[in-house]
Amino acid sequence: MDEISSAEQDRPTGRRGRSSAGGGAAARRAARAGGGPGTQQSFVTRALKPYEVLSEEGLSLIEANADIVLEEVGIEFRDDAEALEMWKNAGADIRGERVHFPKGLCRELLKSAPRVFTQHARNPARSVQIGGDATVFAPVYGPPFVRDLEGIRRYATIEDFRNFVKLAYMAPSIHHSGGTVCEPVDVPVNKRHLDMVLAHMTLSDKPFMGSVTAPERAEDTVAMAKILFGDAFVENNTVVINLINANSPMVFDETMLGAAKVYASNNQACIVTPFILAGAMSPVTVAGTLTQILAEVLAGAAFTQLVRPGAPVLFGTFASSISMQSGAPTFGTPEPSLVSYGAAQLARRLGLPFRTGGSLCASKVPDAQAAYESANTLNSTMMAGTNFVLHAAGWLEGGLASCYEKFMMDIDQLGMQQKLAEGVDLSENGQAMDAIREVGPGSHFLGCAHTQANFQTAFYRSSIADNNSFEQWQAEGEKTAPQRANELARRWLEIYEAPELDAGIAEGLADFVARKKESMPDAFS
Amino acid sequence: MDEISSAEQDRPTGRRGRSSAGGGAAARRAARAGGGPGTQQSFVTRALKPYEVLSEEGLSLIEANADIVLEEVGIEFRDDAEALEMWKNAGADIRGERVHFPKGLCRELLKSAPRVFTQHARNPARSVQIGGDATVFAPVYGPPFVRDLEGIRRYATIEDFRNFVKLAYMAPSIHHSGGTVCEPVDVPVNKRHLDMVLAHMTLSDKPFMGSVTAPERAEDTVAMAKILFGDAFVENNTVVINLINANSPMVFDETMLGAAKVYASNNQACIVTPFILAGAMSPVTVAGTLTQILAEVLAGAAFTQLVRPGAPVLFGTFASSISMQSGAPTFGTPEPSLVSYGAAQLARRLGLPFRTGGSLCASKVPDAQAAYESANTLNSTMMAGTNFVLHAAGWLEGGLASCYEKFMMDIDQLGMQQKLAEGVDLSENGQAMDAIREVGPGSHFLGCAHTQANFQTAFYRSSIADNNSFEQWQAEGEKTAPQRANELARRWLEIYEAPELDAGIAEGLADFVARKKESMPDAFS
Repeated sequence: MDEISSAEQDRPTGRRGRSSAGGGAAARRAARAGGGPGTQQSFVTRALKPYEVLSEEGLSLIEANADIVLEEVGIEFRDDAEALEMWKNAGADIRGERVHFPKGLCRELLKSAPRVFTQHARNPARSVQIGGDATVFAPVYGPPFVRDLEGIRRYATIEDFRNFVKLAYMAPSIHHSGGTVCEPVDVPVNKRHLDMVLAHMTLSDKPFMGSVTAPERAEDTVAMAKILFGDAFVENNTVVINLINANSPMVFDETMLGAAKVYASNNQACIVTPFILAGAMSPVTVAGTLTQILAEVLAGAAFTQLVRPGAPVLFGTFASSISMQSGAPTFGTPEPSLVSYGAAQLARRLGLPFRTGGSLCASKVPDAQAAYESANTLNSTMMAGTNFVLHAAGWLEGGLASCYEKFMMDIDQLGMQQKLAEGVDLSENGQAMDAIREVGPGSHFLGCAHTQANFQTAFYRSSIADNNSFEQWQAEGEKTAPQRANELARRWLEIYEAPELDAGIAEGLADFVARKKESMPDAFS
Repeated sequence: MDEISSAEQDRPTGRRGRSSAGGGAAARRAARAGGGPGTQQSFVTRALKPYEVLSEEGLSLIEANADIVLEEVGIEFRDDAEALEMWKNAGADIRGERVHFPKGLCRELLKSAPRVFTQHARNPARSVQIGGDATVFAPVYGPPFVRDLEGIRRYATIEDFRNFVKLAYMAPSIHHSGGTVCEPVDVPVNKRHLDMVLAHMTLSDKPFMGSVTAPERAEDTVAMAKILFGDAFVENNTVVINLINANSPMVFDETMLGAAKVYASNNQACIVTPFILAGAMSPVTVAGTLTQILAEVLAGAAFTQLVRPGAPVLFGTFASSISMQSGAPTFGTPEPSLVSYGAAQLARRLGLPFRTGGSLCASKVPDAQAAYESANTLNSTMMAGTNFVLHAAGWLEGGLASCYEKFMMDIDQLGMQQKLAEGVDLSENGQAMDAIREVGPGSHFLGCAHTQANFQTAFYRSSIADNNSFEQWQAEGEKTAPQRANELARRWLEIYEAPELDAGIAEGLADFVARKKESMPDAFS
């Protein structure tokens, strides 16, 4: 405890004398010039309760079925003898690579996992709560392509990567820098993670994600975190959160297990996520999919507790369905929403923070399809009470492309969700009885004292929507939402300024990356 | 009671020997040809419970405040001496045109209003339940403009009106033909209602709305309904539902009161709807807006019970907020969603069916802004447990334009909402344990017996979304969602066939309209 307290005092060192409004001087200048990002928001604290689609009876049924799957069908832990040995010692029944779990074993192990934890950022004002009534928005993760500001769809580069980190840093409604905001395919595969982690650490002061593509890359992430935060701080605090996907159905592979072991043993957070296109990787029904998800999460999350009891771990769910005509993944449809709601309920009962959803869509362009699908996904993500929202902005084309314009439109939607989550103000000012008495029948509220006192914060103000008259909109060039988003992205990238970072730390990170890159030849696959 | 039973047997006479699948032969031909509307759906029966944003305490507070508004501030009933006299006789305190309501009076009067009722369609299979766990989707209401299939924004005509009635008739997820699907400005103002009501009665067999722009036009609607359904049936059943807007804040005007009296006295349904742009017609806060809405609805809905105890009446809410910078109305923002949720809760406590929301947006084109805003509105509309959803499809530009492309995109979204509302299937088939056992770790579910048995109905199938690969989408012309919607609308209008209608009734309706038109000179204002 003393060590932790002392570590807590030894707070992240990267930033000094900054106001808590990220974007700082740049943001203030931009706000004066118009079109700047505005005041940074803390993570969402939800005043509204989560929406529930399953009754106690339904939840118990799915839990009982998941127990049957764990015991009778089992989960495979592939190409990792150490993992199998750990499970054997924990009391599981091992047959080949298949682990069969005695009833209750996983739940028992998960008792050591925290319900809520803090992921620290190098700027303490940007640290986030993971779990409970908190929701954290992080950008899209994983696309090999971008749809760029010229409207061209092409392979992503490290410059795109840095651009998305910059935009996420400036976006008031993005609380987290994310991870692979796009895949910088112009950098060798075996060195990419170094540039990516470095970008998150230096171009932003928000919390970020680590590399999971190989155990040694996870080790590099932790090593760099120690340079940024200090050894003692990292040993005693969670400073990186990491995506550990199940290879659904019912398989964890060597790569993910390797990364999970590195992070859990270092007390860093794992998001254990069954990646499900229902109908292909799970049954075509919602209840069947939920059963499989719960079984996979129970096994994967419990594994992190075998590695290090108390290591932070999330109940993750990535749920889409497929078109039964073409096999293509679909987004924003009803079934994945039901899966999100149900999985969130199961996670709460299990006592783990929950990750799902985002602003997902199948559309190839930031058109109405993209927006309908993203809004449907985001609404159910939020109403489900999700704690960590990956893919909250920028996702296009089933996750194959990071889109600048969509990123700017999505962050506007995130701002709306954050406002919605505040719920209804029932204070005397919120009740506004004075206003009703003052105005009375047949008049209007525009000029009354209550309106004057509240107008600046009364309603969410969109950065993208055009609410003007048709004539004014026409006179201003008949711009669509993506066109306005395009202009905003260009403006932000122009005015971006990096958050301050201690010169010694910056040098240390640069040295580490340089040394690592020199230590091995480039690999492109 | 005997009279009602006998009237119930005397069912609407317009259609004979039709299958319950609206669109009939045309739909079947189209389905074979591809791109047809598919099977008509009954109104939504919600298996999911409504979402609630207010606690018991918050609701009681708002109710107490509304009582204060009714008693102390009062509601004006303008230019209608009869209405004031009725309120006086009921025990209200009349000062000028201002009615002050003793505490509890309105609630007492509303005890005679039905919690649930049926609006009959001339095709009994299309009759809808209003209230309880039912949700009914109706098209956009009121726009003077259309955005047509050439992408031109222009004044609406009676041909547009008929087109939207046809599309709504064919749309499986639209349960109601609506009312002023657009304003046919090429028809004289004083004769428009005749052509509009005639179109609903002849081009569709779904339930519809009546004219409210003058008491005599409401009388014409009832007279035409009697030709269509028979006198006895109309006297004893609700066959038309009507939009009675409050002139917020806290005013009901002569026109609306006149229409309300006609409809309520004929046992037809009134939707009493405060039309609120918060910040202008109500306070800038959600709780203040809810208080005013409740007060206005209590007064207006209770008035229908003074006219005829037992007449069906809905708790309506149209809630938007304004941009505090420009004064323009905004849609899809957080505050109106909170108002919808709260108002739905107040309506349930009052025991009245609830109307709000739709697919509202401020965008001038069917772009991402339109879709984000519409999806946000529709999601909160549905999650609130709304019973009657006007503006569910086709709304553009703050309600100034009916848009063909948006109509087609919106009905796809309505289909998704209807599927979502079914909730989670927990049957043995839904649990899918056999599938999980059959497939096991590391395989896929595409070919398993359970998937084969369920694939046709497993997932909602969008009529608009393109889920194909980027390459395939590119090869097919890089179409956006509105372009696909445009093609679909054209195809539907091509294959439309009117539902059968008894020749005598058709002639009777045509005669009535002709006689009425001849009885007065054209008026254009």
